[in-house]
Amino acid sequence: MAIMRLCPNSYLSVTHKITGLQNNLKLFHFTPRPPPLFSSIFTHSVADNDAVTSQVEVSSSNPSTKHNDPPFSGLDETMTGFLFGKKKATEVAHAVWKNVVRKGDLVVDATCGNGYDTLAMLRLIADDSRRGRVFAMDLQKDALESTSSLLDRSLTADERGLVELYAMCHTKMEDLVPKGAAVRLVAFNLGYLPGGDKKIKTESETTLLALEAAKRMLARGGLISILAYVGHSGGREEFEKVELFAAELAADNWVCSKLQMLNRPSAPVLVLISKK
Amino acid sequence: MAIMRLCPNSYLSVTHKITGLQNNLKLFHFTPRPPPLFSSIFTHSVADNDAVTSQVEVSSSNPSTKHNDPPFSGLDETMTGFLFGKKKATEVAHAVWKNVVRKGDLVVDATCGNGYDTLAMLRLIADDSRRGRVFAMDLQKDALESTSSLLDRSLTADERGLVELYAMCHTKMEDLVPKGAAVRLVAFNLGYLPGGDKKIKTESETTLLALEAAKRMLARGGLISILAYVGHSGGREEFEKVELFAAELAADNWVCSKLQMLNRPSAPVLVLISKK
Repeated sequence: MAIMRLCPNSYLSVTHKITGLQNNLKLFHFTPRPPPLFSSIFTHSVADNDAVTSQVEVSSSNPSTKHNDPPFSGLDETMTGFLFGKKKATEVAHAVWKNVVRKGDLVVDATCGNGYDTLAMLRLIADDSRRGRVFAMDLQKDALESTSSLLDRSLTADERGLVELYAMCHTKMEDLVPKGAAVRLVAFNLGYLPGGDKKIKTESETTLLALEAAKRMLARGGLISILAYVGHSGGREEFEKVELFAAELAADNWVCSKLQMLNRPSAPVLVLISKK
Repeated sequence: MAIMRLCPNSYLSVTHKITGLQNNLKLFHFTPRPPPLFSSIFTHSVADNDAVTSQVEVSSSNPSTKHNDPPFSGLDETMTGFLFGKKKATEVAHAVWKNVVRKGDLVVDATCGNGYDTLAMLRLIADDSRRGRVFAMDLQKDALESTSSLLDRSLTADERGLVELYAMCHTKMEDLVPKGAAVRLVAFNLGYLPGGDKKIKTESETTLLALEAAKRMLARGGLISILAYVGHSGGREEFEKVELFAAELAADNWVCSKLQMLNRPSAPVLVLISKK
């Protein structure tokens, strides 16, 4: 959620500090420094003064005890719950991701919002190899702070180090990932930031550009997951454009489907685009 | 599949005999005798000469060894396979049913076609209690013969005894089930009989009447499962009417959803209607 209509070229850096279970978001500042893990990726298209970094200074007393969210449920439980009105579409999305993403994968949260998707993705990719990465982005400061806070509360320092947060437009997501790297999942949660300013929301034009970027980046066997909210102004039009984007993908290489409520017209629609 | 447009009031009885793994479909004849297990249900609306029975004479040498079809897969495997083009919508439907139906339940196959749904349902309800029943119906003789043959090849005599096959219109399904009995699942596989005469197919008018009947019969926690084929003449119109039927159900008591391919416009659509 919460990508502003106009995507500026300036990226914002988030530097923060964890003390015990407290999240102390210390500083937002512009910086010419790229993320330490993927510095090479900034050489091809992002100017130095646009680069972003996410740094974590850790002084947690016991970071290994931070697993305070429940493990993923499977699709049997989640999908059946959804069909009987007991689970949300976002939970179905997470259960689908669980079947696609593997430890050590590179994944992208195109709209980190309050961070629940980012956290869910981290759970799927994190292991001792530390190869996995979640590239998560949003344009709203509130969204980044909220995500950062959730991650700090929920993750060990090692896990937290596998998430890179960017204040940027998701149309630029290709700038973050090393060229040729296999991206297993790109997730979109469209609309506005829950609890935030409802006037600031994703818009069809940039969403479609971001979907084109996601399509170029995705590995075979990968998934683009879009949760489209249709109840707010412009939401249905955006969903219909996403639907059209999916409908036009060649069936030889792509499988595009949607899971949609029929008697709750304002319920979000889950669009899933898989690369064969 | 394969309910003719006009639903006659005459029902056809199927009597057959199993010898080893062979299916010998011996006789189709009209009979005044109701099914032995639910004879009382025929007193309220079905004339004696309309009643139907399905009798099995068994001389199988080793009926306990007939489990030659694989067990059900879960939704994690099936749904993910569907999303990547490796599983069919009908397999997703079966995996959904597995999470809804319990041993000993009463279930209805409204369009038995070649019998794969009937067999899948039997697997879900059969246990030593012998309380469960599958009421399966079709109007086409070819469909009933095909279903009967599949069941005879695949089931033990005890299991086969839990399936009742009827040559009747699914608009009359309420006549089969004892009044007040809890029906957990009513499944529709719309369109024409695969391998049969494509001119004989389900039609919107009777499908909607059958859905109304299914709605009246369904237990809380039960499911109406409709696989709508949209690639043949009239198929899309029928699907749209089913969709409208679902969309108009009160959200307080019903959860209606659909799983639909976006870039394969003629792929079947799975509509799932759950009673809270």
